Amino acid sequence: MAFDENLITRQALERVAKTPDPRLKAILESLIRHLHAFARETAITPEEWMAGIQFLTAVGQKCDQERQEFILLSDTLGLSMMVDAINHRDEAAAVTESSVLGPFYRAGAPIYRNGSAIYADTPGDPVIVSGAVSSSASGQPIKGALVDVWQTAPNGLYYSQDPRQKEYNLCGRFYTEADGGYRFTTLLPHSYPIPTDGPVGAMLRASNRNHFRPAHIHFRVSAPGHREVVTELYTRGDEFLETDPVLGVKDSLVVDYVKSADGYTLQRDFVLHAAG
Amino acid sequence: MAFDENLITRQALERVAKTPDPRLKAILESLIRHLHAFARETAITPEEWMAGIQFLTAVGQKCDQERQEFILLSDTLGLSMMVDAINHRDEAAAVTESSVLGPFYRAGAPIYRNGSAIYADTPGDPVIVSGAVSSSASGQPIKGALVDVWQTAPNGLYYSQDPRQKEYNLCGRFYTEADGGYRFTTLLPHSYPIPTDGPVGAMLRASNRNHFRPAHIHFRVSAPGHREVVTELYTRGDEFLETDPVLGVKDSLVVDYVKSADGYTLQRDFVLHAAG
Repeated sequence: MAFDENLITRQALERVAKTPDPRLKAILESLIRHLHAFARETAITPEEWMAGIQFLTAVGQKCDQERQEFILLSDTLGLSMMVDAINHRDEAAAVTESSVLGPFYRAGAPIYRNGSAIYADTPGDPVIVSGAVSSSASGQPIKGALVDVWQTAPNGLYYSQDPRQKEYNLCGRFYTEADGGYRFTTLLPHSYPIPTDGPVGAMLRASNRNHFRPAHIHFRVSAPGHREVVTELYTRGDEFLETDPVLGVKDSLVVDYVKSADGYTLQRDFVLHAAG
Repeated sequence: MAFDENLITRQALERVAKTPDPRLKAILESLIRHLHAFARETAITPEEWMAGIQFLTAVGQKCDQERQEFILLSDTLGLSMMVDAINHRDEAAAVTESSVLGPFYRAGAPIYRNGSAIYADTPGDPVIVSGAVSSSASGQPIKGALVDVWQTAPNGLYYSQDPRQKEYNLCGRFYTEADGGYRFTTLLPHSYPIPTDGPVGAMLRASNRNHFRPAHIHFRVSAPGHREVVTELYTRGDEFLETDPVLGVKDSLVVDYVKSADGYTLQRDFVLHAAG
């Protein structure tokens, strides 16, 4: 038979050769080469190809205003953390490492004074979280940096998933003081499951994968003249650190909660990449 | 910064390491490696990643009972023809080459006697199509091979898209005679556009790509003890042969319609791969 697999890849590349936008052209060319290489390497059968078509269709159809199953797929394949890593290639070692944003960030959380609690009417173990924000350029503290935090209640639900929690419960924003310091009271975070009622859940089950995220608090920290860091702080000793389904854990983001007579404390500084 | 892109790929591969089905495990591993390599090679930005998420979501949401936009995406990226090529690696050069099935095949077309017309009440240029089906093993003609054909009317629409055409208009099945011969009358096929009202259409426009398929007649030819061939015959000289949006054209499938005083004729034999 006179087929030639390389000819097909060449023809597909020719089809996108007249793409006016050079960046889009480069992305399409790379996509075609890697997609074809994947098919050749696995020698995918027509039945497997059809199963893939049906899987991707189901992922798309699971998406709605509240649910983004393609982001979950990207997260669980490690693509989201790869994109994150690629876009922080230029940062110095001292800069706070980033992690996944996740689907539960909601803009516009209340701005609190330092020292405030970000929850109300929620049972749990109080934690005082404090630290300072500084610049990678000077090493100096940044006054007026914005620290935006959010997390689940101990029941594993964000306020937006749980009608029993008030709006923005366990969410809050803080501006740093002259010494770069911030401080708030929250509740000890707990591990919780990612949604598994869709095709991504079926994929995780087919691989015998854990679907619990390790306990974490989300942070977005930003300041003028600096690159914002989107990250999470993970609880040392959590049983799911090694098997986080969205691969968000980095060693530098695993933190120690200290227990005292007054409850828990967590001390954590952030270093922002000075831009430009 | 202490990130390591290779670490992320290793971690993602570890996540699927316990997949019980070895074939699924191999496919997931290959997918992760190629997906990560694509992201690294293009240094995809978060904005581009999000555009990709939104594109794939729109592709999924365009699918319904009648429309399969992910197959169209696979077709237009050359993946469908790649899968086809991979799965015919073992065939001898004499075997009739395959092409895309397309979304308009409908099982159960009428079985006609050889020499019948497969259309009614449809204006166009009649063509007598004839040939013989033989076996790659012996070179001998195959009696009782099933030749299943379908095509658009000259208006560019399949009967299933066009309420003015009767069910199974321009579709038919024929059993070959003792000499392997088949024969039917149809209408000269015309080029027609693939659907461009969805995200794949937007992708084609962004690449300045042609969206007309070259004129063709679809064939599925099968016989006991042989591998079925799904293919298309393309009209030599068609202006879209070189730019077929689904990359279905192979040189061996481009055919010559001969014009005489009685109308057009097309002579075409099929050679089936003897199985096992």
